[in-house]
Amino acid sequence: MRFRPFQPPKRLLMGPGPSNVHPRVLEAMARPTIGHLDPAFTDMMDEVKALLQYAFRTRNEVTFPVSAPGSAGMESCFVNLVEPGDKVIIGHNGVFSERMRENVERSGGTAVMVDDAWGDPVDPQKIEDALKAHPDARIVAFVHAETSTGARSDAATLARLAHEHDCLVIADTVTSLGGIPLEVDAWELDAVYSGTQKCLSAPPGLSPVTFGERALDKIRARKEKVRSWFLDLNLVLGYWGGAGKRTYHHTAPVNALYALHEALLLLREEGLEAAWRRHRQTHERLCDGLEALGLELIVDPQYRLPQLNAVRVPEGIDEAQVRARLLHEHDLEIGAGLGPLAGRIWRIGLMGQTCRQENVRRCVEALGTVLAEAGHTADVDRARVAVGAV
Amino acid sequence: MRFRPFQPPKRLLMGPGPSNVHPRVLEAMARPTIGHLDPAFTDMMDEVKALLQYAFRTRNEVTFPVSAPGSAGMESCFVNLVEPGDKVIIGHNGVFSERMRENVERSGGTAVMVDDAWGDPVDPQKIEDALKAHPDARIVAFVHAETSTGARSDAATLARLAHEHDCLVIADTVTSLGGIPLEVDAWELDAVYSGTQKCLSAPPGLSPVTFGERALDKIRARKEKVRSWFLDLNLVLGYWGGAGKRTYHHTAPVNALYALHEALLLLREEGLEAAWRRHRQTHERLCDGLEALGLELIVDPQYRLPQLNAVRVPEGIDEAQVRARLLHEHDLEIGAGLGPLAGRIWRIGLMGQTCRQENVRRCVEALGTVLAEAGHTADVDRARVAVGAV
Repeated sequence: MRFRPFQPPKRLLMGPGPSNVHPRVLEAMARPTIGHLDPAFTDMMDEVKALLQYAFRTRNEVTFPVSAPGSAGMESCFVNLVEPGDKVIIGHNGVFSERMRENVERSGGTAVMVDDAWGDPVDPQKIEDALKAHPDARIVAFVHAETSTGARSDAATLARLAHEHDCLVIADTVTSLGGIPLEVDAWELDAVYSGTQKCLSAPPGLSPVTFGERALDKIRARKEKVRSWFLDLNLVLGYWGGAGKRTYHHTAPVNALYALHEALLLLREEGLEAAWRRHRQTHERLCDGLEALGLELIVDPQYRLPQLNAVRVPEGIDEAQVRARLLHEHDLEIGAGLGPLAGRIWRIGLMGQTCRQENVRRCVEALGTVLAEAGHTADVDRARVAVGAV
Repeated sequence: MRFRPFQPPKRLLMGPGPSNVHPRVLEAMARPTIGHLDPAFTDMMDEVKALLQYAFRTRNEVTFPVSAPGSAGMESCFVNLVEPGDKVIIGHNGVFSERMRENVERSGGTAVMVDDAWGDPVDPQKIEDALKAHPDARIVAFVHAETSTGARSDAATLARLAHEHDCLVIADTVTSLGGIPLEVDAWELDAVYSGTQKCLSAPPGLSPVTFGERALDKIRARKEKVRSWFLDLNLVLGYWGGAGKRTYHHTAPVNALYALHEALLLLREEGLEAAWRRHRQTHERLCDGLEALGLELIVDPQYRLPQLNAVRVPEGIDEAQVRARLLHEHDLEIGAGLGPLAGRIWRIGLMGQTCRQENVRRCVEALGTVLAEAGHTADVDRARVAVGAV
């Protein structure tokens, strides 16, 4: 083993995340570490909270980044809200809703899985039927933007149905935050988690979360302690709660928070709605290029996520080889399929800072070249024109 | 709210952690983010594992950093090893053994607390008595280097006693790793967790852990699923296990791992034993300076941690004001006491990159100055001489 300083290759990150991180964010991350209870640091924490409220479109007081990646943000929502015996209805249409089931069961609850095909959104009618069939359900959980398929579900409608049946809502917005409209307050989402390495384009490692009053009431009324000390919101809020003195709970990942702060500043400078528009427009250009290459997206246009494009692998093409050649010959990362879609799709991300027209051009040209060499009959020149590369 | 890029003040970090991070580590952290499944990245992960084996003095295959701070490393050990009904004997002599109790109970186990005074080491005789009184105990847990008091416990002896009574050992080495002798294999510690922001001097956010075969056997034989999906070792090892293909579990904190890699390189370049020696020698100099200032350490010399010095606050001195003046007038952070020691001690850290003679000089001079102005009769000039500042 050589043990030399690590110099990562320069990659264009067009997989399911992480996305490319802006130099300003990397630079912020490299500033000197200070204490996690230093007043200068805790002032910055207040700014991070306010900036996350902006990004989530919420006034929720309890809005902060969990000190661990998105999976821990998911666990933070479930382990705090689910008590032993609680029944949770889960819209199941991809990898991350399966993970929700694991979270519910490990928290001592019972999961009711409402199945939709991978690539489809969660069907509100099926959720309503499940709510009627399970009047004792306490929570409805779903993924707003399913990273494993590229499908967007109608969070506003699902939340309305849940509340009509006296259920709380847990929403996974890992891939939606900063990329497509997300309205935590207007849609009345009770507990929401996200990630930093998707449309916010900060390095992975933190999970922004936000909890509304109904969710906090349920947590406060728990009969049993939360099954995780690290994620117990009652304790975490001693540090992140903000009202007055901060109590030591765990040591916050100081430099990761510098980076998130800067990434959120970039989002605010651009404007949230401008960022949503940029994602939509860049996605449209990518669709033009993929179509010209004779490739199909698996998700119906009205439910497609602009930031995560699931592309069907053409007959006779070795999908892993295509990804390997893109990575090693073009320094371009795209993602593989997961679960039942493994081997059948590629996932092309257009997230955050990666979501630029020049990256669409580079991706379509590289993919067209590799596919042509693999024997796929595609009109690479027409694709180049479609994405403005010539 | 102003929303400008955050520029942290330059602090000398002589609290209980984080310690000052070397510029090489900060620079490594700012390298471009790449994918967490990129072969270039997973090769680097293998190096991190090997470097952690070096630091822990272990050949354990299962040695890796948990993707969250030290508290999650603690939880990773307990939530995986403790099954509902398990009895765990805990050596209780500070904040972090109290936290162990929380972890045991939230995992469904029962904690037997064996009390020692804060500032004392865990008494092996009391642990042996508890093992005899509780022949059904499955695990003995203790803190090797108690960050809240500065006391070192005899991990080798405690582990031997535990094994004589067929118990596994969980050891907290958050503050010991890299600062004082720690021999995971020679002492047969079964499950061990640490942190990055103490004597390794990487930014906070990761928790190195190592699990031996006996611990893995217990985890494999569990009847119930681990209560945390995020920390379930069976799943995490699909990504960190290393044998062949890596399976996506969660998105690793890529840039934080760059930083840890570089911090471990620095440790290896210096040599582990040289780092231990540097901590001891620098501590001795600090003791000379503190003594010349008329200050006392609360821990008996034979159990003192060189990297964490608990100093009794002199009569009539407002300890919080002293810390505030050190921070704001001297850019020097020292720590407060916790629990029963709150208001009664300061905690002066000499961890990792912070542990240098020039920092001892700066600390003793600043502390002497502030104390003299607060009315403490100390011979600041003699203290300067004692630490080589004149």
